[in-house]
Parts: sequence; structure tokens; C-alpha cells
Amino acid sequence: PKKLVAKVVEAARKAKKLGQDDPRKIIHSLKVGLALALVSLFYYCRPLYDAFGVNATWAVLTVVVVFEFYVGATLGRGLNRIFATMAAGALGVKAHDLASLSGEKGEPVLLGFFVFLIGAAFTFLRFFPEIKARYDYGLMIFILTFSLVTVSSYREDEVLVFAHQRLSTVAIGSCISVIVCIFICPVWVGEDLQNLVAVNIEKLGSFLEGFGVEYFKTAEDGQSNDDKSFREGYKSVLSSKTSEESMANLARWEPCHGRFRFRHPWKQYLIIATLTRQCAYNIEALNSFLNSKMQMPIKMRSKIQDPCTKIISEAGQTLNELANAIKTMTRPSSVDSHIENSKTAADNLKALLHTGLFEETDLLEIIPSAAVASLLIDIVTCTEKISEAV
Amino acid sequence: PKKLVAKVVEAARKAKKLGQDDPRKIIHSLKVGLALALVSLFYYCRPLYDAFGVNATWAVLTVVVVFEFYVGATLGRGLNRIFATMAAGALGVKAHDLASLSGEKGEPVLLGFFVFLIGAAFTFLRFFPEIKARYDYGLMIFILTFSLVTVSSYREDEVLVFAHQRLSTVAIGSCISVIVCIFICPVWVGEDLQNLVAVNIEKLGSFLEGFGVEYFKTAEDGQSNDDKSFREGYKSVLSSKTSEESMANLARWEPCHGRFRFRHPWKQYLIIATLTRQCAYNIEALNSFLNSKMQMPIKMRSKIQDPCTKIISEAGQTLNELANAIKTMTRPSSVDSHIENSKTAADNLKALLHTGLFEETDLLEIIPSAAVASLLIDIVTCTEKISEAV
Repeated sequence: PKKLVAKVVEAARKAKKLGQDDPRKIIHSLKVGLALALVSLFYYCRPLYDAFGVNATWAVLTVVVVFEFYVGATLGRGLNRIFATMAAGALGVKAHDLASLSGEKGEPVLLGFFVFLIGAAFTFLRFFPEIKARYDYGLMIFILTFSLVTVSSYREDEVLVFAHQRLSTVAIGSCISVIVCIFICPVWVGEDLQNLVAVNIEKLGSFLEGFGVEYFKTAEDGQSNDDKSFREGYKSVLSSKTSEESMANLARWEPCHGRFRFRHPWKQYLIIATLTRQCAYNIEALNSFLNSKMQMPIKMRSKIQDPCTKIISEAGQTLNELANAIKTMTRPSSVDSHIENSKTAADNLKALLHTGLFEETDLLEIIPSAAVASLLIDIVTCTEKISEAV
Repeated sequence: PKKLVAKVVEAARKAKKLGQDDPRKIIHSLKVGLALALVSLFYYCRPLYDAFGVNATWAVLTVVVVFEFYVGATLGRGLNRIFATMAAGALGVKAHDLASLSGEKGEPVLLGFFVFLIGAAFTFLRFFPEIKARYDYGLMIFILTFSLVTVSSYREDEVLVFAHQRLSTVAIGSCISVIVCIFICPVWVGEDLQNLVAVNIEKLGSFLEGFGVEYFKTAEDGQSNDDKSFREGYKSVLSSKTSEESMANLARWEPCHGRFRFRHPWKQYLIIATLTRQCAYNIEALNSFLNSKMQMPIKMRSKIQDPCTKIISEAGQTLNELANAIKTMTRPSSVDSHIENSKTAADNLKALLHTGLFEETDLLEIIPSAAVASLLIDIVTCTEKISEAV
């Protein structure tokens, strides 16, 4: 029992942390509960039950499967579900009419064949990447409704009533989900996407700043007590591709809200994100030099420290301002001047390396510093590209 | 109409390509159709219809939502669905008993409250990452079944019969899906995961080989006509993290098959994949040097070409053998000797750089070559780590 208590306490602690990290998750849970309670109220009302009978439970089912965290996802699923149900219901009724022509014996065979055909064809359709991205759920519901309508049409003669009931209940469930989702503390996936892209750029900026301090720290400074969190932060940028793409897909379902128009250029965010990731690969390489224990020759350091620090600070500022620009959707003019500054500094560094001041030192010791310098120059190019895309 | 014809032709071409690239997708589609036809046959049988009535359509519904491409996914969904339905059905019956104590007026209020409570609580549970990875679907079905049973218990008195019918139909649908999925041309996610990991390592190997040829090509050789596909292949390795993780999660559901035991160490694949990706970041940096137009000084080239080529070929062979080792699940002894060779070559290269033979040349021109050399040394370390993990 002690173990159990410890486990429960542990779980409660985790739940509290989860809720504190993102209170929207708690609100979302309450919203789902609310939508379910609402839809079950519908069921308790006499007129609705009279109209739909047991099939009214489909409305409950719809709320559970349609309600998602993001408005875009809920809308996408709801619309997919309604339109797929409509199309499949109509086709199912037609299939029933066709099959009933073939007499008592032929009907189940023909119905089974139709189900096989539609099931196989639409499952194959779901493999097309462009279709999968936006209409995967709709295709599944299409197969589902078509099968339900055709199969049950064999036993129930009023296939039209059945199809109509299904469509109405699905529409009721979807509408309740969408309304609750949009009007009570909505969570817009578009805003989250914008935020994610901006935060990723910020992470790179804060890595650069931390790197500048850490790399040009002299051995005499001793072990600094700064937290090294900056060295972990950017790692998530490397693998954020999948979530960005799915968010951009969901964002396309969202209506205009706040500063976002309906046809907001979501693809542009993906382009920026790709450039950010490109920059993050360079930073990953930079990070590996922090790990290597090799000390830089002091003479070398004193020569390149100035231009490098300059590049780092200018590039870091550029990134931070770009992140801000994405968040506020306005382009501050100072970005361009920072980019100019960092380019000048990069040119200085290049010239310095060009003069070959380091002949007397051991090449192996220079390489890391030289590589750092050339990576910094690359990063300047990256920031410039990101800035153009913003 | 001409436009339409062109579009249809285009779509057909795409479909053909999709099918040729992976014939398993066609087979999967046919399997879904078959499972649907089978389950609808069940419905046409008199005894089954008598037992379940319209609720027999739930079996059809189950097949559509449970049947997935991979055996692991189908099994995971099927088991999740059955157990969640069982637990939720039992809880729903209890909730009904409790609510019916509170009289005519109180019952719907209490039922609505229960639905709200369970809906909110379980939706929140779905946010825990560990639970989400394996039991997300089960939790959704739990909410679904609980709501259905409680809500419909208000109108139908035989709530036990209802819960039992739901469980039986869900179990029938899940079993048909799982049986068709496993016994007709099964697609094991475990095998695909193993393959993906091995192919990713291979891609790095073939990049290295291509890189060696391309980088040490003299200007006089002119533009080579080799295809540059090797420079694109490894890019997919950079962003394969998400799919690897979800595949490893699905693979844990699979029973033993072929050379895989039930508790196969799927996590080890993720570790290998992470190391591979680390290596791919280095290769991304190498690739950027191929893009830069800067020519290497000939003197420099002649000095480092030998050890570099040696490193490249040994590291490439190591990677290819490791990929093979993963595929065949046996460890060839030659891997170790290749690693030894590449380490020796790396040491040679280090020593060469150490002697500082290049004092007279322009440092800026050396940097790229030097960086390439140091990246190659890093890659050797990476391959060694991968080899240890295999």
C-alpha cells in the first residue's frame, strides 16, 4: 500500500505540473466534458429522442471523436465528417436501390461486393500524400457511413430514413463540438504555429549569446556557474519538422481570427522554419566545438575574439528581432542594420584570416577556431536568408 | 472536358506509381475491403441479426476504425478498443445504477454530471506523454463507450444488454480485423523499423562514398556526369525522428514473428537511430563544403588526399556493414577491423595536420579542407559509437 500511495502522489505531482505548464489543457478537458454533457442533454429531451431513437447516440459519438485541442483540427474533422457522411449516405442509398433490383438472393451478394469495392478503393485513396494531409478523416468516415448504410439497408427497409438520421445526428454532434471549441477559450493552431516558429528562432539567438560567453571564456575564469540550458534549447529545433507541417495543415482550416486572415500564407511559416532548421544544423556543429576540451592558443584568441564576438552579438540580435517580427507581424527597420553590421564583421573576420597571421602556430590547434569562425560566417548568411523570408 | 481528361490521366499515373512503389498498399486496400465484406456477411446471417439487432452495425464500424496498415497498429487499436469498451461498459452500468437511485428528476442531471466528469478527466489523462504513446485510442474509446452506455441507459432499461451487445460487436469487429491483418500478407511494423534504421545508415555510407569522389575531383576532370542523388538521400535521415518513435511504439504491440521475439529491444533501434542522426548532422556540414565553390590549393590536396580517402572508404564500409548487420541481425567480425583502419587513418590525418606543413599558404583557403578533415575525424567517432550500439 505504501508503494501505491507513492505512485498516486507521483502521478498527482505530474498532473499538477502538466496543468501548470499549459493551463489550456485543463480548460480543454473541461470543454470536452461540457460538450458531452450538452449533447447528452439533447438526448434526454423528448422530441429529439422521438425523432432519432437510439440512433441519437451517434451525436454523442461524434462529439467524442471530433472534439480536438485546436480549433483548426476540430473544424477540419467536423467538416470532413459532415460532408463525407452526406456523400456516403447518398451513394449508399443508390447502392441499395441498385442491389434491391437483383432480387432476394442476389441482394446480399451485391451489397457485399459494393462494400468491398468502396472499402478497397477509398483505403487506397488515403495513401495519396496530398489527400492524406487534409481529407484522411473524411475518407475514413466515407467508408464507414457507406458500409453502415448499405449493410443495414438489407434489414431495414427505410434506408432513406436511416441515412437521413445519421446525417442529422452527425451534424448536431459536429456543430456542438465546433461551437464549444470556438466560443469557449479557443486555442488557435495558427497562433501556436507562429509562436513555435518564432520561439525556435529565439532559441538559436539565445544559443549564440550563450556560446559567445562560453567559448571566449578564459581558463582563468574558471568553471562558470551559468546554467547551460542554452545548449539544450536549440535541440528541439532540429526535429520540429513534422509538428510544424501538421500544424500548418490544420491551420488552413481555421477561419479568420485576430490578426490572421482566412488565407493566411501558412506555407511561408514552413519556409522560414526550414531555413531556421538549416541554421540549427550549423549551430549543432558549433556546439560540438564547445564539447571538445581543446584550448585555443591565446594569441589566436586575442586576434579573432573581437570580430567573432561582434558577429555573434549582431547575429543574435538579428535572430531575436526576427522572432519578434514574426510575433508582432511587423518588420522593424533595425533588422536590416543588424544584418549589415554582422556582414561587415564577417568580412573583417575573413580578411583577418586571409592575412595569415598565424603561421607560427600548430595547425591542429587553429582548426577548431577557424572552423568556428567559418561556421559563424555561414550563420550570418543563414540569418540573412531568414530575414528575407520573413 | 479536355482538362478533366488530363486530370484523370494524371491521377491514374500517380496511382500507378504509388502502387508500384509499394505494392503492399494495394494489398492493404484489398484486405480492408475483404474484412468489410466479411463483417457485413455476419450481418446478413439471421442468427447474428437476431442477437444484436441494429447494434450489429457497430461491428462494421469497428472494422473501419481498427484496421490499419501495420499489424502492430491494428493489434494495438483492437486491444485498446476491446479492453476500453469492457471497462467503460462496466463503469457505465454502475453509473446507471447509482443515478437511478436518485429518482425521476435527478437521474438525467446526475447522468449528465457523470458524463461531464469522466469526459473531462479522461481527456486530461490523454495529455500525459507516456499514456498518449500507447493508450490514446483506448482512452478515447473509454469516454465514448461510457457516454453511450450512460446516455442511452436513460431511455433503455436494459442497460446491461446494451453494454453487453456493444462489447460483443466491438470484439467481433476487432477480431475480424486482426485476423485478416495478420493472416493475409501481414505487414510488420517491426520489420519496417529495422529496415528504416538500416537504410538510413546505408544512406550515410553512400553519401560518404559520393563525397570522396566529388570532393577530391580535380578541376581538370571537368563536370562529372555522375548523378548527384547521394547528396539528397541523407536529408531524410535528418528528420526521421518522429516516424521512428511512432513505429517503435507500434512495434511493441506485435507478437513474435520471424526473427523477432515478443519483447524485442525496440528501444535499441531508437538509440541507434539517434546516433545515426548525430552522424547525419556532421554530414550535413560536410555537404555545405561541397557547395562552396572555393578551390583547394593543389599542394594541400596532395597532402591530405590519401588519409582522407582512406577514412572515407573505411568509414563508408563500416556504415554499410553495420546496416547489413542490422538487417541480418548478425555482427560480422570485419566491422571491427574497418573501424580500426579508419581510426588509424584519422590518427594519421591528425598527425599530418599537427606537423604544420602548410605555413606558406593562405589560411582562408586551408580552412575548408581542414574543417572537412576534422569533420571526417568526428564521423569516425560517430561510426564507432553506432557500432557499439548495434
